[in-house]
Amino acid sequence: MRGAVMYAPGDVRVEDRPEPAIQKPTDAIIKLSATCICGSDLWPYRGTDAVVDAIPMGHEYVGIVEEVGSEVTTIKPGQFVVGSFFASDNTCEICRAGYQTSCVNREILGTAGGAQAERMRVPLADGTLVATREVPPADLIPDFLAASDVLGTGWFGAVAAEVGPGKTVAVVGDGAVGLCGVLAAQQLGADRIIAMSRHEARQQLARDFGATDIVTERGDEGVERIKELTGGLGAHSVIEAVGTQQAMMQAIRSARPGGHVGYVGVSHDVSLAGEDLFMSHVHLHGGPAPVRRFLPDLMDRIWQRKINPAKVFDLELSLDEAAAGYRAMDTRQATKVLLRP
Amino acid sequence: MRGAVMYAPGDVRVEDRPEPAIQKPTDAIIKLSATCICGSDLWPYRGTDAVVDAIPMGHEYVGIVEEVGSEVTTIKPGQFVVGSFFASDNTCEICRAGYQTSCVNREILGTAGGAQAERMRVPLADGTLVATREVPPADLIPDFLAASDVLGTGWFGAVAAEVGPGKTVAVVGDGAVGLCGVLAAQQLGADRIIAMSRHEARQQLARDFGATDIVTERGDEGVERIKELTGGLGAHSVIEAVGTQQAMMQAIRSARPGGHVGYVGVSHDVSLAGEDLFMSHVHLHGGPAPVRRFLPDLMDRIWQRKINPAKVFDLELSLDEAAAGYRAMDTRQATKVLLRP
Repeated sequence: MRGAVMYAPGDVRVEDRPEPAIQKPTDAIIKLSATCICGSDLWPYRGTDAVVDAIPMGHEYVGIVEEVGSEVTTIKPGQFVVGSFFASDNTCEICRAGYQTSCVNREILGTAGGAQAERMRVPLADGTLVATREVPPADLIPDFLAASDVLGTGWFGAVAAEVGPGKTVAVVGDGAVGLCGVLAAQQLGADRIIAMSRHEARQQLARDFGATDIVTERGDEGVERIKELTGGLGAHSVIEAVGTQQAMMQAIRSARPGGHVGYVGVSHDVSLAGEDLFMSHVHLHGGPAPVRRFLPDLMDRIWQRKINPAKVFDLELSLDEAAAGYRAMDTRQATKVLLRP
Repeated sequence: MRGAVMYAPGDVRVEDRPEPAIQKPTDAIIKLSATCICGSDLWPYRGTDAVVDAIPMGHEYVGIVEEVGSEVTTIKPGQFVVGSFFASDNTCEICRAGYQTSCVNREILGTAGGAQAERMRVPLADGTLVATREVPPADLIPDFLAASDVLGTGWFGAVAAEVGPGKTVAVVGDGAVGLCGVLAAQQLGADRIIAMSRHEARQQLARDFGATDIVTERGDEGVERIKELTGGLGAHSVIEAVGTQQAMMQAIRSARPGGHVGYVGVSHDVSLAGEDLFMSHVHLHGGPAPVRRFLPDLMDRIWQRKINPAKVFDLELSLDEAAAGYRAMDTRQATKVLLRP
């Protein structure tokens, strides 16, 4: 089968790879209907994360189940399924509390072979995959694909930031996750949603998703603008969807005392000064989004066409064109690239 | 009047100082019934915080109102009152959300003259002070004094850590605040309360306050012990009441994914690595405790003799003996020193 492999920063190749096979009785094999490139894939692509070995890429997936292991009971061949980047048993105490990405039996999907491929093995299939009632119409597939990571991650950011009615929400980061954070804030009933973006097309998408205000300033100036828009107090809820020091501090300082910061940008060289955090009086919560917690609800909203998160995909390529997709995202010519195997 | 002043690390003197006077129409003057020395007073005493000028010490106080400014409407001369270390208007949006220590009009009590004195000026009297229905019996005065800071701070740590029924709580720090955190956890209905302490007398007081388990190990070993006691998962709630790097990381690593860390130790040279925090999946909340939020409830529990937080005072001296009190706390011969003006 064909699959994308990163050999070095900037060097992604789609090549023939071994077909995946059931390795454990709890595994499933799925044939991918669509996959995509993640903002976090750019960390190794840009050399920020080391690439010490050839890495099969991709962790976002939807597809049709082809085969299941002998202990899989709820997932069946022929079903259309969505899963997330960590496999989880969904039965341990941590999963039951809604933190499937910290499941005591979790497996990172990368170790099972990348999702930017024709087929993939998914461990702990019963706990990881969620099936639709029937195979969805083709036009909904990109929406379900978005639920696999960016929508679920933006949603977790909004939930971690305690977004809700009566709240003013600021969103730091205008990538696909930040934009999905805007959509989540709108769906969760926020009064006012301030998207921080300098990029015109992304500003427009943020407005489509429910942003009521756009702030183009960053850093101290961005914080000052948020304060101006909130009576000098700061936002009730801030979603951080970048993962850099500047973005984290911008998020913390944009929240009012007693406010909530939900951070879902994968942290890179972030170091938080205890005294700043102490005096900020914010609630801080985040980490790898437990997308599995939200999948049934998100998939239902998609099925009912209440939300259209697929709008974050602004470039669609064949799997064999993955390298061009990485280049487009690296240069910010595309927000999010969908790949068709 | 007599009042304690710190001239340099290790150098506290009780001397004649000017009588406080009403400066703003929202001020009150109180005659202190009792005051005390705080763990945070040891930071400058030990030279960790700079002492650039002579500092009037003390920020914990109970007493009788002697005089009020012309705009004070709810607090009256003759009342017995309790206040906290930040003056707050208790009417702004931040106060109404329960974060009086971040009140938009807050004043640090130190700037109004220290509380380790015979009399003090309290700004924003209506928003800062809470009066009892009548002057309490003498034996309750130390309990009300504890509510002024250590009890309210430990309580906030427990609330920030989302302590409640069904939860296992770990408490990092066996000073007066940590011990009051144990008491708060017991009052808030925690199932299991693990106090981390190596000090025999404090272990005993922790047990008196409701601790069900004692862990004597610190750092990595302490974290391992907490994991062993919680089925490998970590505590649901952790109260951090120290403020050092080791204590913060011990607290974060002792909490399970999805758990809550309430930190109330005043941060000193703490730096949190973003990746550790991201992967820990904890909720983090804390800062200067908004004691004012909890005072009515805490004072009611004291009045009804449901709690006896004054047990944290294990040495009582006259105000003139303040220097000996600082020495006793610095050498850990006393947990908390009460001073009688």
